[in-house]
Amino acid sequence: MPAAPPRRVVVLGGGFGGVAVCRGLRGYPGEVVLLDRENHHLFQPLLYQVATAGLAGTDIAQPLRSIFRGEPNVRVLLGTAESIDLARRRVLVRELTEPLAYDHLVIALGVETGWFGHPEWAQHALGLKTLRDAGLVRARLLDSLERAECAPDPAARARLMTAVIVGGGPTGVEVAGACRELARFALRGDFRAIRPAEARVVLVEAGERLLPAFSPRLSEKARASLVELGVEVRLRAAVTAMGPARVELGAEHIEAATLVWAAGVQAPAITRTLGLPLDRAGRIRVEPDLSLPGHPEVFAIGDIASVLDAAGKPVPGVAPAAMQAGRFVAGLIAAAGETREASRPAFRYRDRGAMATIGRSRAVFQRGPIELSGLVAWLGWLLVHLLFLIDLRSRLAVLLQWAYAYCRYRPGARVYSRPEGSPHTDR
Amino acid sequence: MPAAPPRRVVVLGGGFGGVAVCRGLRGYPGEVVLLDRENHHLFQPLLYQVATAGLAGTDIAQPLRSIFRGEPNVRVLLGTAESIDLARRRVLVRELTEPLAYDHLVIALGVETGWFGHPEWAQHALGLKTLRDAGLVRARLLDSLERAECAPDPAARARLMTAVIVGGGPTGVEVAGACRELARFALRGDFRAIRPAEARVVLVEAGERLLPAFSPRLSEKARASLVELGVEVRLRAAVTAMGPARVELGAEHIEAATLVWAAGVQAPAITRTLGLPLDRAGRIRVEPDLSLPGHPEVFAIGDIASVLDAAGKPVPGVAPAAMQAGRFVAGLIAAAGETREASRPAFRYRDRGAMATIGRSRAVFQRGPIELSGLVAWLGWLLVHLLFLIDLRSRLAVLLQWAYAYCRYRPGARVYSRPEGSPHTDR
Repeated sequence: MPAAPPRRVVVLGGGFGGVAVCRGLRGYPGEVVLLDRENHHLFQPLLYQVATAGLAGTDIAQPLRSIFRGEPNVRVLLGTAESIDLARRRVLVRELTEPLAYDHLVIALGVETGWFGHPEWAQHALGLKTLRDAGLVRARLLDSLERAECAPDPAARARLMTAVIVGGGPTGVEVAGACRELARFALRGDFRAIRPAEARVVLVEAGERLLPAFSPRLSEKARASLVELGVEVRLRAAVTAMGPARVELGAEHIEAATLVWAAGVQAPAITRTLGLPLDRAGRIRVEPDLSLPGHPEVFAIGDIASVLDAAGKPVPGVAPAAMQAGRFVAGLIAAAGETREASRPAFRYRDRGAMATIGRSRAVFQRGPIELSGLVAWLGWLLVHLLFLIDLRSRLAVLLQWAYAYCRYRPGARVYSRPEGSPHTDR
Repeated sequence: MPAAPPRRVVVLGGGFGGVAVCRGLRGYPGEVVLLDRENHHLFQPLLYQVATAGLAGTDIAQPLRSIFRGEPNVRVLLGTAESIDLARRRVLVRELTEPLAYDHLVIALGVETGWFGHPEWAQHALGLKTLRDAGLVRARLLDSLERAECAPDPAARARLMTAVIVGGGPTGVEVAGACRELARFALRGDFRAIRPAEARVVLVEAGERLLPAFSPRLSEKARASLVELGVEVRLRAAVTAMGPARVELGAEHIEAATLVWAAGVQAPAITRTLGLPLDRAGRIRVEPDLSLPGHPEVFAIGDIASVLDAAGKPVPGVAPAAMQAGRFVAGLIAAAGETREASRPAFRYRDRGAMATIGRSRAVFQRGPIELSGLVAWLGWLLVHLLFLIDLRSRLAVLLQWAYAYCRYRPGARVYSRPEGSPHTDR
């Protein structure tokens, strides 16, 4: 009997989920192809630090190729998946002339910035999902202060020194807090005409409270901490219109050179090529074993998947959930020869807790009934997030490097290249 | 008698020369305005390391504002000087509504990439003068290898794995050597379909030898070291035409996805607004005291100035010369109340030696009759360049950080954002 041909696992996306799948397939006898649009894995929980000039982009990214250098069965390809042909078991990739055939497929593409039916707002506000996004936010924040330093008109100066962050989830809370800390502490003494400490940071949330995934008590703690830092928190305030350097909240409007949109996410358009049921944000509704309905050879994990846990509660779109799902799916794929699909176990999410940082020494943390806030929670953030999440080759070296950069408020991170060829408006 | 109004010194350019002027004016009773297009001072001698993914851009840049945070009389402004009105003693700045008036002016704007009368070549080749340039070269080098990994056609693959560096001065030599080291060592084991060690790096120089500012013996040492690293060195080879991913050297042509232009520089166009004699590259011909002819209140220093030393030899366009000139001019300005212009001393350049590195452990060094090469010269490079040139606040911290990044071949520096919206050609 001839040996079975080597099987190929295709993994779409090199985020926490995709990387966990490939790691979990160490020693897999077939080929593992990891496809991503970018050449790096991003430590997304710290992306807000890059946006607010606390860390350099290179501090929180690692080339995918160097992660899998020592695993010859893992092949990294850079490209954009355009559609998935479930019937013929192949993926069309824009950069490849041939479709990419698979025996197993893992869709781990994450989510994109969602504009709630207002794609035109993308012209005015900046999202925060990629390293490029973070670079744009940083350049906008710093360049606005530079323009303010030169602006003779008080109204223009006020507009240039205002940032509006839309969305009161963890990203919005973290960006707002870090913006105020940048203005108050990191830039102290840097300007002559303006006082960066007077920069206005407005956090806008349509709901009743910040951080709706946390307890009301922690939501209030976070709000109070932000207010103490000088952030103006607007609850029950929905964005009704946006223009250049201008946001409308019903009757009120705010002029702000920097508009950051952290209010929503949506699944990438590729999910619509599947012909399968999606949730409202375009996420793929998966079976309890994370496979696609009717396609036990295809899985969706991480933020792109809509998963219910055993209690019928949705699994949150956080890195630990993606990593757990990645390891789970890698196990199913590795055992595919031995286990029957019908006898697969269901994915069980173990809640490691949720966390949001407010500035450099405060955070809120919740894990079931356990609630922490303040410095204790922030130290917990270091332990839980960094030690659990980073699974880089030299964990200690990276930790030290970050700690150094974090404590010194690394001035190099404030470097940006001015937007080229942009008309010099006083936005 | 009323006190004289405070005097204003305007310094154009925050490179080695401009920063040295501002530092030299510490405690100056008037106002010092430093104007630059970017928000950072760049340690340009290591720019080639950023271009070849050895260092992160933030490692070699420092925000100008943080350099002068502790000097309240120094005001940093971001903007582009468009013209200089010597008669009315003011500078027109694109971003400012009012012209910038001065009592003393120091022009320290450096030079730009010069295309020898072929501005259209800028579409095809990348210059290397700014952080943005370095980012583009890095993205091109790395992205070409990524495309090669996906390219089924051997001719396309060969083109994608070829880089041509034009210009055999220090920048060209350093880029060529670092490209080969990147391919041979840093990327070892990263790819599956291609072997980066087979990447072709061609260094093209029109003259008889590399590094014409050095002795013929050191030129030959540098050539031999490059050849040993695997660089193809073409002497007496002038570029006659360029196209997309293609360079012509007379009858021969080379297809190369990456074309780097390090063959020439020219002064920025603003020198033509002065109405004064310029040299062939547009540099300002200055008096022995570095002032402009007929304008003792205006100085030009660094690469933008054409200066002859006491022996009638041109002062080279290197960082130590710019720093020495900056300190010299700061002294003249500080003493302006006491010294008559006629009795000013002439600027004397002290040659600290010239140096070029070839890869990570070899260099050539020359200072008058002293010639060094190999590892000794490279260690000398560390001492002379880093200790003499960096005058940052925490010299030791920066040195350690660099040493760490340099030795570990910092993988984070290999991160790039893929060019957005560019048509997917197989260049």
